[in-house]
Amino acid sequence: MKAVVFDGQLRLAVDCEDPIPAPGEVRIRTTLAGICNTDLEIMRGYAAYRGVPGHEFVGVVDRAEDSALVGQRVVGEINAACGTCETCRAGRPTHCPNRTALGIRGRDGALAEFFCLPTANLHPIPKGLPDQVAVFAEPLAAACEVLAQVHIRPTDRVIVLGDGKLGLLVAQVISLTACDLTVVGRHPDKLAILTARGIPVQVGEQGLAHSADLVVECTGQPEGFRAARHMVRPCGTLVLKSTYHGLVHIDLSSLVVDEIRMIGSRCGPFPAALRLLERGGVDVRSLITAEYPMDQARAAFEHAGRRGALKVLVRP
Amino acid sequence: MKAVVFDGQLRLAVDCEDPIPAPGEVRIRTTLAGICNTDLEIMRGYAAYRGVPGHEFVGVVDRAEDSALVGQRVVGEINAACGTCETCRAGRPTHCPNRTALGIRGRDGALAEFFCLPTANLHPIPKGLPDQVAVFAEPLAAACEVLAQVHIRPTDRVIVLGDGKLGLLVAQVISLTACDLTVVGRHPDKLAILTARGIPVQVGEQGLAHSADLVVECTGQPEGFRAARHMVRPCGTLVLKSTYHGLVHIDLSSLVVDEIRMIGSRCGPFPAALRLLERGGVDVRSLITAEYPMDQARAAFEHAGRRGALKVLVRP
Repeated sequence: MKAVVFDGQLRLAVDCEDPIPAPGEVRIRTTLAGICNTDLEIMRGYAAYRGVPGHEFVGVVDRAEDSALVGQRVVGEINAACGTCETCRAGRPTHCPNRTALGIRGRDGALAEFFCLPTANLHPIPKGLPDQVAVFAEPLAAACEVLAQVHIRPTDRVIVLGDGKLGLLVAQVISLTACDLTVVGRHPDKLAILTARGIPVQVGEQGLAHSADLVVECTGQPEGFRAARHMVRPCGTLVLKSTYHGLVHIDLSSLVVDEIRMIGSRCGPFPAALRLLERGGVDVRSLITAEYPMDQARAAFEHAGRRGALKVLVRP
Repeated sequence: MKAVVFDGQLRLAVDCEDPIPAPGEVRIRTTLAGICNTDLEIMRGYAAYRGVPGHEFVGVVDRAEDSALVGQRVVGEINAACGTCETCRAGRPTHCPNRTALGIRGRDGALAEFFCLPTANLHPIPKGLPDQVAVFAEPLAAACEVLAQVHIRPTDRVIVLGDGKLGLLVAQVISLTACDLTVVGRHPDKLAILTARGIPVQVGEQGLAHSADLVVECTGQPEGFRAARHMVRPCGTLVLKSTYHGLVHIDLSSLVVDEIRMIGSRCGPFPAALRLLERGGVDVRSLITAEYPMDQARAAFEHAGRRGALKVLVRP
């Protein structure tokens, strides 16, 4: 089969062996995949990953122990847990220390004709939901994770920092709470997607010092932390969504003095994301910048990394 | 009056003018004061404070608008808020941006014969509670703040890191929740104070990686963060109590991936602390290392900073 492979460089391999699903797994034929900021960070060394990238996908089950699954259109959770360790038994399988993660850690990803996932990770796609919408289930679930972790009151003053792919999804999800939301970004054209939905936006952080009960940092950059920290009020909450390669220098004592609450936030609930997509509560189509055939995967990654780009999709 | 003054160096001044209370304030005659780790950090540049240090005290009201207060034995909250800003009106006066803090920020402290505090900051000391116990009200309130911020379940696995003055108080307060607690320190003689109360202790962090639902970092050192981070489980909570001079390099992405919750924790509820002291639920007397007359304040500070020392008290 054909697959995109990252081995320090990104290349297209045309002679990969078709994967064989392990017990408890299915094989999925990719019909559409998305490029995420994490994929771009992997190219910069994040997570030291080598293999097939890609963890945002829509596919069709191609091989399964349960033949009723074959032909089912699915999205899927990316963390494959062991199911037996203390963390799994405590109900936190996405944090299983033995986990693999699709296209990120020890498991070839979806930027291939075929890939494998545990059956337990699958979520059938509701009928009528197009591939180009369903492919946002994974990042939208990650946006929903913020609501799963923090109680956002309709009276809260909230800032979403970052107008990239994830920031635009997080902003739309948070706006559903009716809170007093402002999205701070750098790209008027991206922010316009939110303005069209009635969400207040602003270019740059001026006038927002210590103003927010909650700041969600979605810039994908280490510099985002400083700005987010500056905008949160004492006793306020800072949700961190960005993953990148590198360390940040932090004045922890100031977090103590201001009694700031910081919460790391990663993968989220797929069923909630699929409900939102089905109900049309979130506009994802406006986030699609381009679609490439897999043969042009390098061009797709180059485009995804370009300033101004949002979601770049890849079709096998 | 006599006062201890820090102006880059610590010295005893014998010719300070007696302070005059502002409207809404009382003047307090210090009867006993404690030296805190924050005081030692101030000597190293923390908070860039200059003036009379000292924020842990027992005193007697000496001058007041309400004459009924005169002669009252009191402890007092250290943050003097403006009462009119948005933060004060939101019910967070300890975070008032215009606040002064006794002996830490813009307000001469308690290591003097007399000092002033707003009347609203005072808490009468219950009869029968000796000065040497009541002087712990401020740090014990800071320990209680952890319980005010985090719901500790009796089933939680908790680690308190640090066997200094604050660590020993935090550990005793947290042990009241019946949680599965271990205190990690470096000084067998200090940890013995906890062992005597049935609290499990351990020298060094071996065997505790990713083991705790909650870690409370009380080392007072930047190095404490790394150890605390290492001991908290994914989705666990890290409470930061240490304030010191300097930055820490942090892998924020790992906090995102592990969905760690970090909470800065500072001053806490005095009434709760006084109740605990009155009920004898916490042993503070064992924490007293020495008592000095104010004339020997430099020796008292030197002693407080010595390895092995716990609470050093100063009597005017």
